Amino acid sequence: MLIVAERINSSRKKISEAIQAKDADFIRGEAKAQAEAGADYIDVNAGSFVGQEAEYLCWLVEIVQEATELPLCLDSPDPAALAAALELVKGPCMLNSITLEKQRLAGMLPLVKKYRTKIIALCQSDEGMANTVEEKVSVAKELIETLTKEGVALDDIYIDPLIYPIATDTKSAVAALGAIREIMQLFPGVHTIAGLTNVSFGLPVRKLINRTFLVAAMAHGLDSAIIDPTDRELMASLVAAEVVLDRDKFCAGYITAYREGKLA
Amino acid sequence: MLIVAERINSSRKKISEAIQAKDADFIRGEAKAQAEAGADYIDVNAGSFVGQEAEYLCWLVEIVQEATELPLCLDSPDPAALAAALELVKGPCMLNSITLEKQRLAGMLPLVKKYRTKIIALCQSDEGMANTVEEKVSVAKELIETLTKEGVALDDIYIDPLIYPIATDTKSAVAALGAIREIMQLFPGVHTIAGLTNVSFGLPVRKLINRTFLVAAMAHGLDSAIIDPTDRELMASLVAAEVVLDRDKFCAGYITAYREGKLA
Repeated sequence: MLIVAERINSSRKKISEAIQAKDADFIRGEAKAQAEAGADYIDVNAGSFVGQEAEYLCWLVEIVQEATELPLCLDSPDPAALAAALELVKGPCMLNSITLEKQRLAGMLPLVKKYRTKIIALCQSDEGMANTVEEKVSVAKELIETLTKEGVALDDIYIDPLIYPIATDTKSAVAALGAIREIMQLFPGVHTIAGLTNVSFGLPVRKLINRTFLVAAMAHGLDSAIIDPTDRELMASLVAAEVVLDRDKFCAGYITAYREGKLA
Repeated sequence: MLIVAERINSSRKKISEAIQAKDADFIRGEAKAQAEAGADYIDVNAGSFVGQEAEYLCWLVEIVQEATELPLCLDSPDPAALAAALELVKGPCMLNSITLEKQRLAGMLPLVKKYRTKIIALCQSDEGMANTVEEKVSVAKELIETLTKEGVALDDIYIDPLIYPIATDTKSAVAALGAIREIMQLFPGVHTIAGLTNVSFGLPVRKLINRTFLVAAMAHGLDSAIIDPTDRELMASLVAAEVVLDRDKFCAGYITAYREGKLA
């Protein structure tokens, strides 16, 4: 399971405050904690600072690279902010995210190609966000065709089916799950990725819904997730799901997590 | 989700001792606790008392029926013990379990028909226990054909794909999951059921594996389970999975469980 660690996001109050205060220690601490908890990529987002996003995103890139050698996931819909940040990135990188919207695609694709980044591609087009399994798979297909035609390797594409709150539409999680299964079957080699925070919006005990959805999504083939790896119960569910789904050779990852006290 | 509550099983030391001591209060307490925790059926098993199984099973049936109005699941491979117990059963009943083994089938089928019971049917034949998806689906198919030809309604059949320890074969859970999906797709109207205790045998933090497997199995279509409903974390996972999989209209079951303090 590829884990994109989501905590360094300016939509979180503490992160926003730390960015404004240029509190590098706090950001480094967040990066290190997520790296130690099992992150594969560290997401960095300064999207809530309109007009200053590029500046703050660049600052985050530099600070996080001081704290960890893990690759970054640059999280912005703004090609200008990404272009500035990409100049500072050492090593491989992931962009979060592209869509099928013409303008966004046109702005982002040159960066994906120039920097040979991995790319998160949302099931969203100029017609709006895809809701049903059929819509999600259809947009995914077009995204994959468009990206591979431009020379992007299938292995660098992470399709996000988009997860909406169950509380407002009880079919929304099932639609995402069905799309994940179909996309993984139709395009062997591509990846699917999902954030979990939306799914439980409006329901109590949200973390229980989040980790249950994660297991269900992994059971449908999801191989990447945008999560908070410092959430111990979530990570325990993830590690256990790897065992149940025969993705953890000799149960070695599970046994290691147990010995490190991460399952209790 | 149909929940068959598994605690009153003579393979558990405390139950075995209570049966031998004819401690009716203890058994009644176990029945009531499981009923209050959300059981739909109360499994009763006296299988560890060779030679006295029928006598003790009958005693369990009478005691449990004093404690709860929930239907029973009579758990024995012995038609004689089941026949004696069935005479005492008030209302509907489930038998646990039939297989495709000729002798077992011949002994059990007349009881299923005479008492119009629901029946758990294991993916096991005279050739042994089914291991792969193909074997499990093939045995399930033959079980369903045999039973429906004898007049058993599809809705009364609960196919158990058999779950083996992941620790001895890391592919075993995936085989069961694949079989559950195929059986539910091939035979609309039939049920699938599984016990969870085997899957985690030999691994640490077994309950984490059990509840993770349960969610994955429900994501594959499992609609019934033989579990301990007094395991709060397991039940919380189950209730959350119902929400995620759009089986809980308006999230009403989840909200109720939350208000009753069952999700904390």
